[in-house]
Amino acid sequence: MATAEETDAPAAYEELLDQYERLTYVGGASGVLSWDQQVMMPAGGAPARSKQLSALSAIHHELLTDDDVGEWLDELDDADLTPEQEAVVREIRRQYERADAVPVELVEEISETSSEALQVWEDAKAEDDFSAFAPYLEDLVELKREYAEHIDPDADPYEVLFADYEPYLDLDTAERVLTRLRDELVPLIDELNDADADLAQPFDGTYPEDAQEALSRDVLAKVDYDFERGRLDTSSHPFTSGNQFDTRITTRFDESDPLGALMSTVHEYGHAQYNLGVPQDEYGNPLGESRDLTVHESQSRLWENHIGRSRAFYDLVLDDLKEHFDGIDDATVEDVYEAANQIYPENRIRVEADELTYHMHIILRFEIERDLISGDLDVEDVPEVWNEKMEEYLGVTPDTDAEGCLQDIHWSHGNFGYFPTYSLGSVLAAQLYASADEDIDDLDAKVAAGDFDALHDWLGENVHQHGKRYTTPDLVEEATGEPYTADYFLDYAESKFRDLYDL
Amino acid sequence: MATAEETDAPAAYEELLDQYERLTYVGGASGVLSWDQQVMMPAGGAPARSKQLSALSAIHHELLTDDDVGEWLDELDDADLTPEQEAVVREIRRQYERADAVPVELVEEISETSSEALQVWEDAKAEDDFSAFAPYLEDLVELKREYAEHIDPDADPYEVLFADYEPYLDLDTAERVLTRLRDELVPLIDELNDADADLAQPFDGTYPEDAQEALSRDVLAKVDYDFERGRLDTSSHPFTSGNQFDTRITTRFDESDPLGALMSTVHEYGHAQYNLGVPQDEYGNPLGESRDLTVHESQSRLWENHIGRSRAFYDLVLDDLKEHFDGIDDATVEDVYEAANQIYPENRIRVEADELTYHMHIILRFEIERDLISGDLDVEDVPEVWNEKMEEYLGVTPDTDAEGCLQDIHWSHGNFGYFPTYSLGSVLAAQLYASADEDIDDLDAKVAAGDFDALHDWLGENVHQHGKRYTTPDLVEEATGEPYTADYFLDYAESKFRDLYDL
Repeated sequence: MATAEETDAPAAYEELLDQYERLTYVGGASGVLSWDQQVMMPAGGAPARSKQLSALSAIHHELLTDDDVGEWLDELDDADLTPEQEAVVREIRRQYERADAVPVELVEEISETSSEALQVWEDAKAEDDFSAFAPYLEDLVELKREYAEHIDPDADPYEVLFADYEPYLDLDTAERVLTRLRDELVPLIDELNDADADLAQPFDGTYPEDAQEALSRDVLAKVDYDFERGRLDTSSHPFTSGNQFDTRITTRFDESDPLGALMSTVHEYGHAQYNLGVPQDEYGNPLGESRDLTVHESQSRLWENHIGRSRAFYDLVLDDLKEHFDGIDDATVEDVYEAANQIYPENRIRVEADELTYHMHIILRFEIERDLISGDLDVEDVPEVWNEKMEEYLGVTPDTDAEGCLQDIHWSHGNFGYFPTYSLGSVLAAQLYASADEDIDDLDAKVAAGDFDALHDWLGENVHQHGKRYTTPDLVEEATGEPYTADYFLDYAESKFRDLYDL
Repeated sequence: MATAEETDAPAAYEELLDQYERLTYVGGASGVLSWDQQVMMPAGGAPARSKQLSALSAIHHELLTDDDVGEWLDELDDADLTPEQEAVVREIRRQYERADAVPVELVEEISETSSEALQVWEDAKAEDDFSAFAPYLEDLVELKREYAEHIDPDADPYEVLFADYEPYLDLDTAERVLTRLRDELVPLIDELNDADADLAQPFDGTYPEDAQEALSRDVLAKVDYDFERGRLDTSSHPFTSGNQFDTRITTRFDESDPLGALMSTVHEYGHAQYNLGVPQDEYGNPLGESRDLTVHESQSRLWENHIGRSRAFYDLVLDDLKEHFDGIDDATVEDVYEAANQIYPENRIRVEADELTYHMHIILRFEIERDLISGDLDVEDVPEVWNEKMEEYLGVTPDTDAEGCLQDIHWSHGNFGYFPTYSLGSVLAAQLYASADEDIDDLDAKVAAGDFDALHDWLGENVHQHGKRYTTPDLVEEATGEPYTADYFLDYAESKFRDLYDL
């Protein structure tokens, strides 16, 4: 494959690349500081850390919006570049244009308002007081509308915001997929819920954290996580952070939910494999960066759902489970498979949702935030609409706003447009896995045997190695031979859960 | 106390302060990345980390040597400033002038040469092959001479280099103190060595790492280490890193040397207390920074030697030792005190040296590096001179260069002028401790009772709170009422060791 650095590139290209390398390294430093803050930092360190992170963020912004960057990009408008170099310029241009369009004062106002809003949201959630958070949410909605207006005054502002997280799947496609999920999954969930199936539940004790951690480490070794380039730690919210040389994951433990941490670990592992799989010699340019949130989430969901919730996987790890957990000596592969795949429509919390009802939580948020940004919904009406939609999609009404519209951190950051990528990524995971399954002989048997080489190779060749070489739709077509589609996900869901629930 | 930020300061002062804040935060970010590299980072992360650190270092240098900084400093030449503001300008000016005097190309060449030299030194040490390292040492000597020449062509180059680590104690003072230490300690060590005293050695087993770590944590709690603003971890070389909000220490364990890790922990704790004691509201300017290496080392040595190797301390921690270590049930305070204070002139390794012979290791290095920089000593003759001086000062000759002139990392970094600050700091520790002892009633009894409030207050008021407000000599005079002197250290050493060895 051609690389970003080639001889005969125009001088402007070389200079652009040098500048982008520096801002990548500054961004990488911020990533280390954030990881440390969430995993290692003593509480007292917060004031200094916040100043360090602000300084790096300002420097990153100045490097990206430097007048020189605009000039180099202008010079490269009609330059003779290789396809890889064109991709590099496309990606840098996109970042430059978005960053340059928004006045620094507005960026700072959003940053300060989110800082305050985060604190207010935490208190409002603890005290179940939506009215305390509402004025901040109103401000953030207004500020993010302004932000979108600066970037593209002619576009639907929600579309502009969505593109911060998923730049290349257009919003129509996203909406069509999400609507289809809603229309097909709501009746399926209803049916499954009414089926009154008696699924096994072998886990009814408490499972100590150290046993859960030992299990996670053993399983990570079985799926070939490279501990020479990674770490497993704990944090209050699991996340993945790093680059192709060093990507670390975190998990968290609930002693009454032994599969929760394991699934979370496998999910973050999928993210990590993507980061670790982009080319090392492209570190510092877009060919050495993973694609955006949809593709990233496809990698985590592929490992979590298509591997981690499969029968073959429990064939592979049943002995590990028995080694680390007491009281499940008699459990079978089928028992654990059933336990890992039960649906819980009565659950109100997104991050605790099962594989299927999860998407109802996402669609509800998507519909609400879209209407908030368009002005079709007032902030004060969010709790009511939230509860109505929960009833409509899952047949359950949250008792409090704390377990309703106050449960997620995203809106307190002003992150409107982020939620849909969770479902879009799951949909892509199914499409990619179906394609890999077609290309790899006996993939299921290989999973059960712990032989992941072919799958690693497939994902590496079709997804990881490209970095940001292709846009999301092109990457999907290159990898699967088809445009992005929800067909595979819906087929997978129907067939897996009808089988499981004997329908 | 007045602060760095005051109303009515000239605009140039405010702008200088803003710029310096930003570079402080960038420097702080580098500190976190370095800590992570030594304590947490998986090995594979090195290539990316090195690029991130280089980028931050270059940005730091550009911020410091910005033309604006020079202009603001010019404008402030005769400005009407408070003494605190004058101190701020003095410290920034000093950094600016040194950084601005040296061409970026030379800084980069030194950085690249040290990077290579570090690798070569590691191999040379492993293979006991000084001749492999010699050419790199020659290059570094030459490059550092050039560096000194740029900063001050009229000064003794070693003096210029020394001032990178200790800017305010002049080299004459340093040399006078070191020479006095050599002249008085060599005969004392001889005498002690010949005394044939039979000191107790209650530790003759192996002491597991986890027991040693638990002991270190218990002792840190007893000396009031604030774990809300700090951490204890392990690393191959113990160090302290952080600021007034978050300062972390590391230690390392040798299962045959149970007091080694404890003393190392207490030493780093002393460094940490200094960092944590400078004013939080001055974070980002020199009043919120600890003074240079002599004062810093005085804080670590005060805790390590004057507290950690005292009878009163073993009175305090004897039960902790017995709780964590097997086989010492019969040991008395006096036994452990003797074990912690035996001298080992036959030891060849600086970092394993006792409190007294340690200084011979330093003086030897000081004399050699001074002659290397002046040109009075050729690199090829270093091993021979090293061994002669070891024989002369300690009566022992290293069997290999690996345990001789290749043992330390400092010269492979080009850090000529660093070593003396270790001894200069120990000397200052004795002077400060004598003064605290005079001011605090029954300090010994308070140590034995674990009541460190008065000592914390004394160090806070006389040393920590000032940040870089005073130069080193002024700080010593303010704190002790006397100029910097070796009298207290030599009195302490004579009296402690003559008593211990029954002379």
